[in-house]
Amino acid sequence: MTDFVPTPTLPAPDIVRCAYMEIVVTDLARSREFYVDVLGLHVTEEDENNIYLRPLEEFIHHNLVLRKGPIAAVAAFAYRVKSPAEVDAAEAYYKELGCRTERRKEGFTKGIGDSVRVEDPLGFPYEFFHEVEHVERLTQRYDLYSAGELVRLDHFNQVTPDVPRGRKYLEDLGFRVSEDIQDSDGVTYAAWMHRKQTVHDTALTGGNGPRMHHVAFATHEKHNIIQICDKMGALRISDRIERGPGRHGVSNAFYLYILDPDGHRIEIYTQDYYTGDPDNPTITWDVHDNQRRDWWGNPVVPSWYTEASLVLDLDGNPQPVIEREEKSEMAVTVGADGFSYTRKSDDDGGAQQGFKLGAQL
Amino acid sequence: MTDFVPTPTLPAPDIVRCAYMEIVVTDLARSREFYVDVLGLHVTEEDENNIYLRPLEEFIHHNLVLRKGPIAAVAAFAYRVKSPAEVDAAEAYYKELGCRTERRKEGFTKGIGDSVRVEDPLGFPYEFFHEVEHVERLTQRYDLYSAGELVRLDHFNQVTPDVPRGRKYLEDLGFRVSEDIQDSDGVTYAAWMHRKQTVHDTALTGGNGPRMHHVAFATHEKHNIIQICDKMGALRISDRIERGPGRHGVSNAFYLYILDPDGHRIEIYTQDYYTGDPDNPTITWDVHDNQRRDWWGNPVVPSWYTEASLVLDLDGNPQPVIEREEKSEMAVTVGADGFSYTRKSDDDGGAQQGFKLGAQL
Amino acid sequence: MTDFVPTPTLPAPDIVRCAYMEIVVTDLARSREFYVDVLGLHVTEEDENNIYLRPLEEFIHHNLVLRKGPIAAVAAFAYRVKSPAEVDAAEAYYKELGCRTERRKEGFTKGIGDSVRVEDPLGFPYEFFHEVEHVERLTQRYDLYSAGELVRLDHFNQVTPDVPRGRKYLEDLGFRVSEDIQDSDGVTYAAWMHRKQTVHDTALTGGNGPRMHHVAFATHEKHNIIQICDKMGALRISDRIERGPGRHGVSNAFYLYILDPDGHRIEIYTQDYYTGDPDNPTITWDVHDNQRRDWWGNPVVPSWYTEASLVLDLDGNPQPVIEREEKSEMAVTVGADGFSYTRKSDDDGGAQQGFKLGAQL
Amino acid sequence: MTDFVPTPTLPAPDIVRCAYMEIVVTDLARSREFYVDVLGLHVTEEDENNIYLRPLEEFIHHNLVLRKGPIAAVAAFAYRVKSPAEVDAAEAYYKELGCRTERRKEGFTKGIGDSVRVEDPLGFPYEFFHEVEHVERLTQRYDLYSAGELVRLDHFNQVTPDVPRGRKYLEDLGFRVSEDIQDSDGVTYAAWMHRKQTVHDTALTGGNGPRMHHVAFATHEKHNIIQICDKMGALRISDRIERGPGRHGVSNAFYLYILDPDGHRIEIYTQDYYTGDPDNPTITWDVHDNQRRDWWGNPVVPSWYTEASLVLDLDGNPQPVIEREEKSEMAVTVGADGFSYTRKSDDDGGAQQGFKLGAQL
Repeated sequence: MTDFVPTPTLPAPDIVRCAYMEIVVTDLARSREFYVDVLGLHVTEEDENNIYLRPLEEFIHHNLVLRKGPIAAVAAFAYRVKSPAEVDAAEAYYKELGCRTERRKEGFTKGIGDSVRVEDPLGFPYEFFHEVEHVERLTQRYDLYSAGELVRLDHFNQVTPDVPRGRKYLEDLGFRVSEDIQDSDGVTYAAWMHRKQTVHDTALTGGNGPRMHHVAFATHEKHNIIQICDKMGALRISDRIERGPGRHGVSNAFYLYILDPDGHRIEIYTQDYYTGDPDNPTITWDVHDNQRRDWWGNPVVPSWYTEASLVLDLDGNPQPVIEREEKSEMAVTVGADGFSYTRKSDDDGGAQQGFKLGAQL
Repeated sequence: MTDFVPTPTLPAPDIVRCAYMEIVVTDLARSREFYVDVLGLHVTEEDENNIYLRPLEEFIHHNLVLRKGPIAAVAAFAYRVKSPAEVDAAEAYYKELGCRTERRKEGFTKGIGDSVRVEDPLGFPYEFFHEVEHVERLTQRYDLYSAGELVRLDHFNQVTPDVPRGRKYLEDLGFRVSEDIQDSDGVTYAAWMHRKQTVHDTALTGGNGPRMHHVAFATHEKHNIIQICDKMGALRISDRIERGPGRHGVSNAFYLYILDPDGHRIEIYTQDYYTGDPDNPTITWDVHDNQRRDWWGNPVVPSWYTEASLVLDLDGNPQPVIEREEKSEMAVTVGADGFSYTRKSDDDGGAQQGFKLGAQL
Repeated sequence: MTDFVPTPTLPAPDIVRCAYMEIVVTDLARSREFYVDVLGLHVTEEDENNIYLRPLEEFIHHNLVLRKGPIAAVAAFAYRVKSPAEVDAAEAYYKELGCRTERRKEGFTKGIGDSVRVEDPLGFPYEFFHEVEHVERLTQRYDLYSAGELVRLDHFNQVTPDVPRGRKYLEDLGFRVSEDIQDSDGVTYAAWMHRKQTVHDTALTGGNGPRMHHVAFATHEKHNIIQICDKMGALRISDRIERGPGRHGVSNAFYLYILDPDGHRIEIYTQDYYTGDPDNPTITWDVHDNQRRDWWGNPVVPSWYTEASLVLDLDGNPQPVIEREEKSEMAVTVGADGFSYTRKSDDDGGAQQGFKLGAQL
Repeated sequence: MTDFVPTPTLPAPDIVRCAYMEIVVTDLARSREFYVDVLGLHVTEEDENNIYLRPLEEFIHHNLVLRKGPIAAVAAFAYRVKSPAEVDAAEAYYKELGCRTERRKEGFTKGIGDSVRVEDPLGFPYEFFHEVEHVERLTQRYDLYSAGELVRLDHFNQVTPDVPRGRKYLEDLGFRVSEDIQDSDGVTYAAWMHRKQTVHDTALTGGNGPRMHHVAFATHEKHNIIQICDKMGALRISDRIERGPGRHGVSNAFYLYILDPDGHRIEIYTQDYYTGDPDNPTITWDVHDNQRRDWWGNPVVPSWYTEASLVLDLDGNPQPVIEREEKSEMAVTVGADGFSYTRKSDDDGGAQQGFKLGAQL
């Protein structure tokens, strides 16, 4: 399937990092309560229809836009490029790929200047911009520092049916793979890809898509993440804690997945590793390794595999969701049809060794 | 059923705290690897058949004895009493209760002096002693401080079929209840009981018993517990992580349950609260409150409810296990027959509100 | 000098723990800002002249009363006793000692019932009470949990000229010594004394007195203390950080000393150790051990030795301050006349070995 | 003085990051004890004269070489460049600058390939290389994870008399300034400069030079740094804790400075911030701001300003140390001649406001 992505001849835009996500929420007040009162994101600006949010250490206008709308979905995955000229490069690049593009000199959201939005080959609404309003970086505003403080946007995660195809597209675009999950039949289940010097700016998760799997914010330390759980318990919304906290195998980060009022998934994430060297070693995990998704072998709940957010086209309509044709990670690892191992044994290829009985559905 | 415990007329022995557990393990070398190499307990003394262990801040000879034997079981739950005379008081007290007792001036284990062991009314092998060898308290030996360092014995946990009966027995013995779990029909599922100024020295968990549910060691901070998980992942024994880490509803402690090579369950525990005032408020949890066992609503795995260690009589034979007759906590909370809530709703009594779908078996 | 304390014949009142301090502040609004806005103590109740404060895990009405008054001072060091009858015992005990006492059935502060206040043999205003209003224990109110949350009152610290005399008085009163600082000439510089199962409920610091050296609140973990420093930096009141953070030699706790707007000293403290066994080992430190006050050898600032708060008599007048006659810890350890060691050498008694040059005044 | 650095016409080599430091130690066994036993760095390789060390998350051969020699000094500040061709670029660049260079195809140390070393315009021995042996990245080897684990090389710090001159040189070389310290007379006291996306790969500290001020390793969390202090206390080498722990104003990192057996200064450092955007805001601190070096206003000990390690020329001889001509940061901030402020007042320009009396020499 990977031949479906044409190889571009134009240079890819020079992407600095994932920069913000625009998500459509159905009840702006309830979402504000979740993102501002529960999670403590800082409001840069807000009006009747939009809230512009940033974590503590951000100096650009926002990392998250909540926009009021009829259908919960994602309107943009926005990347910052290195210079204004790179926005031109992005526009040309996607035009050559045959993608629909839209350029707005004044930006698509407040605080952002000249931008181009595209419907990318995987069906995702990608945005590229450089110009941005600088705002107060709250790094040392410890008077505002909450016990579960979010400090940085870390990454996006996208669901797409054909991971190798998506990977080729993103590698062409200048992303480098830090880690992936495969099986011995050569099926790729997921891939982590970065521009900045962390494990990822975005990841591809194999599944029905295009859909948004999650957006992740970083904390300084692990106890900050535990506090978010404790606070959600105190607020009696622990049912919105979907998975974790735990230690990822992939990325080595300490993680937590929670759900906003519309079911958009947020990851809270801390302590992955430096990937800035050009020969940073890529790590490939076996899909049957029971510690790949959770280093402690704790099970992945099914909803984490199956649920995700719709994404919008440039007209604001949800993109149709295409089914994954290859094996699903859930099917090959969870329940009666799946098998996993904690340790490889010497004589049977490791299957079923150290499986955590009763801990999987 | 609570009338089965006769009310003693003699004063109860003045218990200071839970002090050590003697457990029988079937492979001493494998157990040593677990408790010393993985968990980092400090060896006070060892010989061919026994290892005497203590955590960092202990100054008595040991908090755990591993004894080699044919059947994995618990030989003693030992409490320290306030003075040598209180050992006499304990012996007289249990004799009046009609229990079998055995007194040994030289102690039952190395490092311990005059002691009495009893087969208590619930079938557990309890020991009471005062005399003990002092050893180096390693509190400031930060050169020995591992990343997952255990610093203190915290508590025992015992499985018994009739919790109210056990509770009356322990209250007579001078324990005070800090927290319990009940339902609206008046069934008690578990109770936490203390002598020292923490949430418990021992707890009673309703189930087939007498059996030992777990023994718990404290760490200083939450990250120490996370490190134990991370290390077990690195050693590829994550299948011995049974439950957690998580935040308890009951006790408010941050916790982890792991299994030793014989399946004896160890809890790692930190940050419960002070209970030393005579009118310390008792907290009663509803068995259907989905946050009672895990404040984040993460499910309790079935094995945690069903598995436990045999206990020995004074001849060293396993005590027969008697079935619980009342409803089981697992049955009323997990799976098709159970129901739980995260929040009480206004109109239906709260059942099924905020249930974390897919997260329970 | 120790013969100045008469040996009582009556039984001492059974003290549970240090319970609250009443301090007089000169500007109630400024003090509120410090204790509530900066430190995050929770207001149980307040009026024009008083603010009643408690940390997260307290269930009695308050641990601190701020009372508006003309002279910054301490009006009471209050201890909770085990039963109402123990208030009678306290009154009788101090009357026999020849101390002035005052009994108030309705209590001296809101939320507290029948109490006796005394001018004790060392000149301190001590209070004993049992009856108290229970308030919401905020233990699991993680929605209120600040990044530098204070969770428990830990101890008092009192300055007195004659530490052995004070120690005898407090031992008669039922306190036990956990640690002390002495020199080879037999001079005692400080002693730590407890009723509850921690290192201290109060400590005696040798110096001109009676004065209040500090009152200490506990946090859960070390990072909570660091956050308090960070926040004071953000508020540009770092000049009120007097000493620390650091690791105590004595008590092993992680500590910080800060100053309120009147110069009353507050310690933030975490992770000392269990002292509940009757034979808990007492630790004696050499005054010349450079790690006794700070395990890392960081210098004690002179103000920490010289500054302290006045205490009031039962009429509300400041007690006269009596000079210490014995050597001062500051003089024997800091500066030109002092000497300290980090390590003992083999041949010169250890003096001057490993002294941290330039780090002392 | 800044005109002393010629402006190069050739492109600067594309530097990825600071990669390793080679230091000469006088007693290899004692140094091994410090770096391996105390600090827990991992030995990649060692022989009679050299030890090659790396922290947990490194995948290149080493970040630190200890080489046995007669005079404690620094033999190389080595940077990794993006490709083999960039070594050629580096050689040409420095030749054009008129600097002495030495090229070795087989590298100057084990594990490193084709490299060039130069005597740079400031007198420092800089190395540039790309080829390097990959070794096991220990990121998830939590079985090896010590309580004070170092995980990454963070940065170098160099002492040079003329900071603006050094800054121009490093900016020409492609470094970007993240923060600096100046006064209102336009004197620059220090500057922080980065290639990777952290606050710095190296910093310039104004003083007599060329000398090496420190080399810094990162930990994951703050408690890891506290443990290093605690361990040095337990080993009774707290006199090698020179400064801290504390929170930097500049960089916002939590820090500690310790001294190796030769007096080489090591910083332990955690949690600065992302600087990867091209318009990352530069922060300028006032030299009189009492929180610039320590956010909590704790004093900088004089030795930190005055002591530093010699650096070697390409023949292995110490470079002569040239005196700083401009005002020294110590002189303008510490003691009788200096003044600092914690807060700016409205009417006197802020001098002497909130000065932490007694805390400075």
